[in-house]
Amino acid sequence: MATIKDVANQAGVSVATVSRVLNGNGYVHEDTRSKVEQSIRELNYTPNEVARSLYKRKSKLIGLLLPDIMNPYFPQLARGVEDEMQENDYRLIFGNSDESKKKEMEYIQTFVQNNVVGVISSTNDPDADMYTGLNIPVVFLDRTSSDRPSVYADGRQGGRIAAEEIVRRGSKAVTVIQGPADVRPAQERFEGAVEVLEQQAAAYQVLKTTSFSLTDAEEFAQKVFSEYPDTDGIIASNDIMASAVVKEAFRLGKRVPEDVQIIGFDDILLSRLLAPPLSTIHQPAYEMGREAARLLIGLIEGQRIEKSNIEFSVEFIERQTTRKVES
Amino acid sequence: MATIKDVANQAGVSVATVSRVLNGNGYVHEDTRSKVEQSIRELNYTPNEVARSLYKRKSKLIGLLLPDIMNPYFPQLARGVEDEMQENDYRLIFGNSDESKKKEMEYIQTFVQNNVVGVISSTNDPDADMYTGLNIPVVFLDRTSSDRPSVYADGRQGGRIAAEEIVRRGSKAVTVIQGPADVRPAQERFEGAVEVLEQQAAAYQVLKTTSFSLTDAEEFAQKVFSEYPDTDGIIASNDIMASAVVKEAFRLGKRVPEDVQIIGFDDILLSRLLAPPLSTIHQPAYEMGREAARLLIGLIEGQRIEKSNIEFSVEFIERQTTRKVES
Repeated sequence: MATIKDVANQAGVSVATVSRVLNGNGYVHEDTRSKVEQSIRELNYTPNEVARSLYKRKSKLIGLLLPDIMNPYFPQLARGVEDEMQENDYRLIFGNSDESKKKEMEYIQTFVQNNVVGVISSTNDPDADMYTGLNIPVVFLDRTSSDRPSVYADGRQGGRIAAEEIVRRGSKAVTVIQGPADVRPAQERFEGAVEVLEQQAAAYQVLKTTSFSLTDAEEFAQKVFSEYPDTDGIIASNDIMASAVVKEAFRLGKRVPEDVQIIGFDDILLSRLLAPPLSTIHQPAYEMGREAARLLIGLIEGQRIEKSNIEFSVEFIERQTTRKVES
Repeated sequence: MATIKDVANQAGVSVATVSRVLNGNGYVHEDTRSKVEQSIRELNYTPNEVARSLYKRKSKLIGLLLPDIMNPYFPQLARGVEDEMQENDYRLIFGNSDESKKKEMEYIQTFVQNNVVGVISSTNDPDADMYTGLNIPVVFLDRTSSDRPSVYADGRQGGRIAAEEIVRRGSKAVTVIQGPADVRPAQERFEGAVEVLEQQAAAYQVLKTTSFSLTDAEEFAQKVFSEYPDTDGIIASNDIMASAVVKEAFRLGKRVPEDVQIIGFDDILLSRLLAPPLSTIHQPAYEMGREAARLLIGLIEGQRIEKSNIEFSVEFIERQTTRKVES
């Protein structure tokens, strides 16, 4: 099959000229155009879409580092980043660090080697060398960094709201599930919840967990009820954990929300598809992703940035794993 | 702050030599090493991790195209691909086509522009120009292609099993939810189910859907029961749709599985966290991702490939949205 090179050779012109004829852009002399068109016919050349597209402007690459694509919260963030980038003709290289420093490092390295023009990272360590050493713009997403560009939700406030709602709706023995110690947003929401429970002098206990993974969630859910069989209100570390707790409550014959109330965190799309649908703290993940992309593009393109620390507020979504009260 | 270049200049050696000293690999003459170490001390140079890592071997890039990262099935596939690639020192560029030909094309273009050495694609159109025109290995994942390397599950068999199980467990008025017409695996599983229902002369009806998106799932779930209020068995197009159907059944006060049985497809991790946990057809997504990566690496490295069409079998996972029967 004839290639664009064959056409160029036969017509005695450059590949770029053939490309200009094919795409109908740029100046090509009428005689040259005729020669090229004749060669195309003679060689029966069909420009394939890929070859043609290669002459179009090359899109700039952005590196996006996420901790765990198996948790549906992160694909929602990613989707927001991607849509904004796509509309502005940037493309994503994507890395999944799996909360491992080594993998994270390898991906940042891959990003740099492939000449990304900026990075968006949901790292647990914005101050790590691998970021401070980069000489391209970096935006931290879903992570707080006081002195560097970042987009995040107010996790502490989320924890506070969860605690207020569960107490207000009548739970007397609250269990707070504390997420992994090295995941900052998990700690912030945990601290927020404990703050309110202390203020209100409410009875509560804490279950520490070491992972956010779906496969461990069931085990932790069983632990909640075996260690605290009389708990009547559970503030879960995220929606995955909350789903596992709802399921375990059902298995034990407890009624939700009559016997035990459950509040999640994130508001992943699936949480409203649960039966009963999950009451949770909504983080605007998709919008946060878009905002991080907007901020990064601004930094890359040298725009004047008004605000490089963008905090989104969170809100309680009342569904059916919490009791109704007069408001 | 001093850079590696400053160190090289002061010591009168190349940057590569400084790097060899820093990484402790490759031959460096003892005198040269001393000079470099002295310059490092004098300039108070701290090699940052990124700079250091850049001297390591550059990882090869693979392009991975998925239709929808918001559906948790695809991150499972991606995770399998990624783990296998990571272990073999390949890295992923990742594209989300959103079932759009235009986006798919743009990503394939990005892959090529960034010199990927191979592509894994869950496209609906393996015969499209953008693939036949590529001169690097391509493996189709979760998609059947008879004459090109591909890794997929036996969807037709999955549909058959779902129909057999739901009839065997006593449903007399089955509803089959047909997934989007342009998504091949959806059609195969649909055809498999209908095949068995016809063979068994079972009463059934079909609800056509146009999307797999989470946001549309609720609407289709409502349609199932408004159009077929007496249905007592639902074969859903995937687990997301099945979750929405379970929730809608609860909303309508129907008991699952006593009044209506529900079978999903995929076995995403969340399906076992549902209350009640979802009976479904298991596709080994993670393993399929790994296998596609293995196959692609084999093709890239010119290994002798025994089998370039790899079909995984599927199985029924009995949980609690189907009735118990004597086996």
